[in-house]
Amino acid sequence: MIKTDYIKVETEGNTEIINITSEVKKIAESSGIKEGVVSIFVAHTTAGLAIMEFEPGSIKDLKEEFEKLAPSEKTYHHGDVVDGNNGQSHIRGALLKPCLTVPLVDKGLVLGTWQSIVLVDFDIKKRERKVVVQVVGE
Amino acid sequence: MIKTDYIKVETEGNTEIINITSEVKKIAESSGIKEGVVSIFVAHTTAGLAIMEFEPGSIKDLKEEFEKLAPSEKTYHHGDVVDGNNGQSHIRGALLKPCLTVPLVDKGLVLGTWQSIVLVDFDIKKRERKVVVQVVGE
Amino acid sequence: MIKTDYIKVETEGNTEIINITSEVKKIAESSGIKEGVVSIFVAHTTAGLAIMEFEPGSIKDLKEEFEKLAPSEKTYHHGDVVDGNNGQSHIRGALLKPCLTVPLVDKGLVLGTWQSIVLVDFDIKKRERKVVVQVVGE
Repeated sequence: MIKTDYIKVETEGNTEIINITSEVKKIAESSGIKEGVVSIFVAHTTAGLAIMEFEPGSIKDLKEEFEKLAPSEKTYHHGDVVDGNNGQSHIRGALLKPCLTVPLVDKGLVLGTWQSIVLVDFDIKKRERKVVVQVVGE
Repeated sequence: MIKTDYIKVETEGNTEIINITSEVKKIAESSGIKEGVVSIFVAHTTAGLAIMEFEPGSIKDLKEEFEKLAPSEKTYHHGDVVDGNNGQSHIRGALLKPCLTVPLVDKGLVLGTWQSIVLVDFDIKKRERKVVVQVVGE
Repeated sequence: MIKTDYIKVETEGNTEIINITSEVKKIAESSGIKEGVVSIFVAHTTAGLAIMEFEPGSIKDLKEEFEKLAPSEKTYHHGDVVDGNNGQSHIRGALLKPCLTVPLVDKGLVLGTWQSIVLVDFDIKKRERKVVVQVVGE
């Protein structure tokens, strides 16, 4: 059995980190599937998905980490080919990846006490993002 | 068809890298499922899952890599919010991610000759970790 | 329902980035499964899978990023244990990971306009790589 649903997320870009745990939970736990794997996917190159403790300190730390990995002020080859100076957004997105899998057991998402599912938007302007949530199981 | 099982792992923390391939193999290959996807998930923010050649040199190299990505001696904003100086553990965990998927074919886990599934514990003290292993297929 | 198929990819190594979207698409969309999760896995420690905009600028940027993450000229402990000076290939592979999941809806792979599925070969010589593609759904 498979159920597919979607979440739309409005973001500010600039490595904004958005907690989508409750939306994923709602889809997974009302899917009618008791036990399965929940696959989450964001259909954009300049965004990614992660799991983290969603508190202001770690949010700031993670933003700084992405700034360190692919600095905003660097000049990227992406800008030589495509109009736009968001080369760092593409590198950050490629490293973080747009997919996650999370277990569903007894109709409940299995997450550690502090684990939140987050969408990270690396683009440099406001965006509307589409997240696909699928539950496969029985 | 879906089967869910669990592995408990006692760790030393401090980016200890623990080979859990044989436990995952055992669960997957005795699940009664012949062909499927094996989804592995660790339910903690300061741990992650990877696949690597499990030999002392690469283990040392990977620990040094995480030290480079998020140094232990740095001061993290996490410590401003939450009691504890393990900000680097959270960043490392967020980057590595707590999930993996591995194929099961003809009742055998499909892994390359040198591929081992490892749990990396980024916390700064001894921990007991829960790993969820799910096999979905037929 | 589960379908498993394979892609063979000849690579030049040295962080060559190869677009395998059309091969994955072909397997997923001719699987007979209408809706499901597509799991992709490369069975080698010195390779990884990513999703990116496949254009010459970002390809160059991503290669430079891996060079920054684990420089080629550095001496790795891997070389103390195993014959071969490809320690950086192992670190890059462990960080990028060999797995991806992508949704299949209405017999079509759900990918954003600019999202391509790529194999990154971190080894330092020509290789033949095996990619496993599985579709689980109904």
